[in-house]
Amino acid sequence: MSIRVGIVGISGFGGGEALRLIASHPSFELVYAAGESSAGSRLVDRFPGVPSKLAGLEIARWDPEALPDLDLLFASLPTGASAEALARVPEGVKIVDIGGDHRYVDGWTYGLADVWPERIRGQTRIANPGCFPVATLTALAPLLVGGLIEPGNIVIDAKTGISGAGRGGDSRFGYAESNENLQPYGLLQHVHMPEMATTIAHLAGGAAEGLVFTPHLVPMTRGLLVTIYGRGTASTGQCLEAARAYYAERPFVRVTERPPQTKWASGSNLAFVSYAADPERDLVIAMGVVDNLGKGAAGHAVQNANLICGLPETAGLEGAPVWP
Amino acid sequence: MSIRVGIVGISGFGGGEALRLIASHPSFELVYAAGESSAGSRLVDRFPGVPSKLAGLEIARWDPEALPDLDLLFASLPTGASAEALARVPEGVKIVDIGGDHRYVDGWTYGLADVWPERIRGQTRIANPGCFPVATLTALAPLLVGGLIEPGNIVIDAKTGISGAGRGGDSRFGYAESNENLQPYGLLQHVHMPEMATTIAHLAGGAAEGLVFTPHLVPMTRGLLVTIYGRGTASTGQCLEAARAYYAERPFVRVTERPPQTKWASGSNLAFVSYAADPERDLVIAMGVVDNLGKGAAGHAVQNANLICGLPETAGLEGAPVWP
Amino acid sequence: MSIRVGIVGISGFGGGEALRLIASHPSFELVYAAGESSAGSRLVDRFPGVPSKLAGLEIARWDPEALPDLDLLFASLPTGASAEALARVPEGVKIVDIGGDHRYVDGWTYGLADVWPERIRGQTRIANPGCFPVATLTALAPLLVGGLIEPGNIVIDAKTGISGAGRGGDSRFGYAESNENLQPYGLLQHVHMPEMATTIAHLAGGAAEGLVFTPHLVPMTRGLLVTIYGRGTASTGQCLEAARAYYAERPFVRVTERPPQTKWASGSNLAFVSYAADPERDLVIAMGVVDNLGKGAAGHAVQNANLICGLPETAGLEGAPVWP
Amino acid sequence: MSIRVGIVGISGFGGGEALRLIASHPSFELVYAAGESSAGSRLVDRFPGVPSKLAGLEIARWDPEALPDLDLLFASLPTGASAEALARVPEGVKIVDIGGDHRYVDGWTYGLADVWPERIRGQTRIANPGCFPVATLTALAPLLVGGLIEPGNIVIDAKTGISGAGRGGDSRFGYAESNENLQPYGLLQHVHMPEMATTIAHLAGGAAEGLVFTPHLVPMTRGLLVTIYGRGTASTGQCLEAARAYYAERPFVRVTERPPQTKWASGSNLAFVSYAADPERDLVIAMGVVDNLGKGAAGHAVQNANLICGLPETAGLEGAPVWP
Repeated sequence: MSIRVGIVGISGFGGGEALRLIASHPSFELVYAAGESSAGSRLVDRFPGVPSKLAGLEIARWDPEALPDLDLLFASLPTGASAEALARVPEGVKIVDIGGDHRYVDGWTYGLADVWPERIRGQTRIANPGCFPVATLTALAPLLVGGLIEPGNIVIDAKTGISGAGRGGDSRFGYAESNENLQPYGLLQHVHMPEMATTIAHLAGGAAEGLVFTPHLVPMTRGLLVTIYGRGTASTGQCLEAARAYYAERPFVRVTERPPQTKWASGSNLAFVSYAADPERDLVIAMGVVDNLGKGAAGHAVQNANLICGLPETAGLEGAPVWP
Repeated sequence: MSIRVGIVGISGFGGGEALRLIASHPSFELVYAAGESSAGSRLVDRFPGVPSKLAGLEIARWDPEALPDLDLLFASLPTGASAEALARVPEGVKIVDIGGDHRYVDGWTYGLADVWPERIRGQTRIANPGCFPVATLTALAPLLVGGLIEPGNIVIDAKTGISGAGRGGDSRFGYAESNENLQPYGLLQHVHMPEMATTIAHLAGGAAEGLVFTPHLVPMTRGLLVTIYGRGTASTGQCLEAARAYYAERPFVRVTERPPQTKWASGSNLAFVSYAADPERDLVIAMGVVDNLGKGAAGHAVQNANLICGLPETAGLEGAPVWP
Repeated sequence: MSIRVGIVGISGFGGGEALRLIASHPSFELVYAAGESSAGSRLVDRFPGVPSKLAGLEIARWDPEALPDLDLLFASLPTGASAEALARVPEGVKIVDIGGDHRYVDGWTYGLADVWPERIRGQTRIANPGCFPVATLTALAPLLVGGLIEPGNIVIDAKTGISGAGRGGDSRFGYAESNENLQPYGLLQHVHMPEMATTIAHLAGGAAEGLVFTPHLVPMTRGLLVTIYGRGTASTGQCLEAARAYYAERPFVRVTERPPQTKWASGSNLAFVSYAADPERDLVIAMGVVDNLGKGAAGHAVQNANLICGLPETAGLEGAPVWP
Repeated sequence: MSIRVGIVGISGFGGGEALRLIASHPSFELVYAAGESSAGSRLVDRFPGVPSKLAGLEIARWDPEALPDLDLLFASLPTGASAEALARVPEGVKIVDIGGDHRYVDGWTYGLADVWPERIRGQTRIANPGCFPVATLTALAPLLVGGLIEPGNIVIDAKTGISGAGRGGDSRFGYAESNENLQPYGLLQHVHMPEMATTIAHLAGGAAEGLVFTPHLVPMTRGLLVTIYGRGTASTGQCLEAARAYYAERPFVRVTERPPQTKWASGSNLAFVSYAADPERDLVIAMGVVDNLGKGAAGHAVQNANLICGLPETAGLEGAPVWP
């Protein structure tokens, strides 16, 4: 039996990736797509390679009170745009909010699916984690839970492909200015920090004081790597072992001895984590790689949707990464 | 019932893409992978994101006389390396040769799947077309068959991503020298010309004299576009109409009014074709876009394999293109 | 003695490249820079690496009637924006218009500097050629003048880096959508065609009927290649010889036997031309490579300025290309 | 009076950039170029855009005992290849070794030109700093000298373009595998660490214990950024002020309030440094940007050569960065 699915925010990169994944999902049927800049077009006008069965679907103007009969809605709206609107969606419609408005908000479950799937099953309102938090928290969770890294004074040096800056017309993200350019930004002030600090404290059972987060824009379309520096006296082997045990039953997290590369995850819902430690120096380095639009956004959202719909967690997410 | 499949040439880009597609194919079970540089490794050592069920498969040294029990073999070997070796594969093993050694060779069927699927069904030895010929012939077939373009004096200006130059260590294809660089090569002498001329003549029922083919390396990993200039008095609308009719029942060819872009096909088995004509100038422009590793290599090979195995032609090939 | 120079359109890519070249020109002193989006900033705010001597220059709002005392003005304005405004610049100020409004307009000299420097010397109003015409005409001029190619039925398949699409916020030129994408556009209708047809006819002494021009956007920042197909019975050697003779005394045009690559010209004012011919097929292929912002825009403009100011033609333009 | 200059290692990226800079240097005359893979070719065969005056120079096979009459030699050889060979160069020939063999070696001066030019003047054997150390030490020097950062426990998260991995045929640096890929490597073991630790200790007057250095390969040709995390209680403003004072008379270091981007330095000899600090958290972040082939290699080498030859420090290095 198919689940009737809608996407709002189809014009953006997160919405587009959700479309790609839903189109080949064995249990989802896309019946509604809404967008701002593309309303009135058919899907095939925006996505020339969309499967034929969806080509003619007309993109609606987003109106939470004029939805068709839906079981599930994916929302991928700009920050600030979803809080009020999603409150008007009928209660019977399950929602996964890919945007940032509902993270650690009452009535919504923070959907860190690889770490706590059991909290997500059975819920109906899921706040998908941000792309930087996903990579960071997936790498840190086994160490925090196992007491192998201190929750305070963690430094996250993060690097994302430019699709992470969203679609839209800022010339800073134009090809000619972004290509052959590496850009740090938002030092000591990034919006993702509270979400990370809250989760770190939760996992560690202690405050994540002094968290530092420095994001950089890398000249590539997709991909996200965090290189995390923390304090701890575990060895590299102990960190790897803790992660292997923690994720032994989880389908999407791969623990590797080699430092992970962003291309390993491209187009997939995988996360790669690895570690390097120097106990004499009281140093633990944790690394996490995801596709910022996959595990960092739409892939993770589909995983959350599978959990809340009672489907196999991996449904529609088994595609291997694209290489090269 | 699953079909037991092998890949030889797993280290290269074509072999790697075959692996990705076979890994999520509903009827194929990968039981054998062989390579030169990677023999002795496990699949996961070379492809960190490979599905877990295949992770531990050991890469064999290629030996056509030491194959396991196989139903189907995909060969992706360098030019010159497959002719002798594939002759030693047992007759009962179906073969799709992604490499160039068997195109228009006796005993092998030239597998231009979107144009003549009926010739492929029931065969056991398929020579997959080259990436440039696929894009070219898919764009030209409706015009040639319909008499809308002359078979002589066709000019093909072709552009491919750098994965088309194959893997391996030539510093000309190194990142630093290829990036921000557009390189024409092989003027008036490219190896793909006989294959194209033969097929054009066959489709048109007349000689493809004076064929010109100019390939260019474009600084991108994947993607292939041909811009073809020929003589004819049809209008743009007549060309589009001919192509729509020709491909009406074919699942992978999309006829578009907009000039197609390579990203439309990325990661998929789709081909996009479009046309612009100026009857007063006796000019027809045909354009074809494919992913050079998808429809231009491994995707096409899986399509051919579906045809010779009696499977639905689209099995395992329904994934939408990756965007952006 | 230094020449007092201004730039209008400093915010765009052409204006920025003009700034770079003027900053190290031995006879030019930049005293005025005007722009739209950047008015009120200092040069260093927009160009963090600008030489210290220019860092504090304030960017003015463009007003042709409020110019400081100037000898020479470079204009790099969007199409349609310069015609009216430049008419109000005092007569005593020499102008090189990098934009397209004055090409083949009365009172302005079409500044195809490598082909007809003698027409440019002594003039005061120069229309700089477009980037595509520069590469095309530089490659074709020796053949047209020598009767080695027919002026009719020439097909120009052109490829440009994305800076050729100009700055500004169109999301089509955003990094995520342009990267790994090759995009044909403007088939049978591009704005540069009349400029090319007029010059071809002029050089050949016969009409350039049936000219075909197909531009493509290539995922690289800078660089432009034209691959030109025409009719003629000369050999490759005869074409090369004609070009060597034609450009023997010209400092910026290099005739090569290898097909030229765009990176060869990057950051320089050089043009590379090469040829491949098949007399039996009545075919001549000409290739031209430039940096679209160098010889295709600002470099060419400085060369024109040198000519009209009575300076050595190569002043400020002797920098070798950047490699890799 | 011109200085007779040679380059050994002309085939590599560092040697090529040295060629570009020397070709337009007002006091240098290139009379000798040696390389391994290119011996026997003319310069123009390897560098199609080389200035005409140098085009015909034949590339010699490197032999330190068969040098022409030289005043100055730039060596850009692989690690391990220069120690023995350069010992055989006649004493009267000044040497700048761009390679790594002579850093902190007796008889050689470590040429950190922006920090200690006075130590370099008058010397004849200069070891050019590595690309990562240049960016790191230029950013840290004002803080270390001023006591604004502790010399211990510094974490350097470094990102370089792929030309930093050198030329040559490793397929890991091939376009298809490096593009759209971000790769950490060499964790806790990079060869540049002793050079950095020694200099940090020297500048701070205290041991650089616990230094951490994590390099990453970024998919771009040129550019290098270090993001450095250290301990200190200075404010952002104090750090900026210290750097402005420290570099007030130095021509190539720019102190910026905005986080610097790699493109700001592209093709130039500039270094950009910036800072962000949080005294309450005992945190100082320092950032340094260079072009890894410019200030990180050949540009720095020319600067050192200017210093040892008694020329103006900026001779031949005044070109503004290439943008975009």
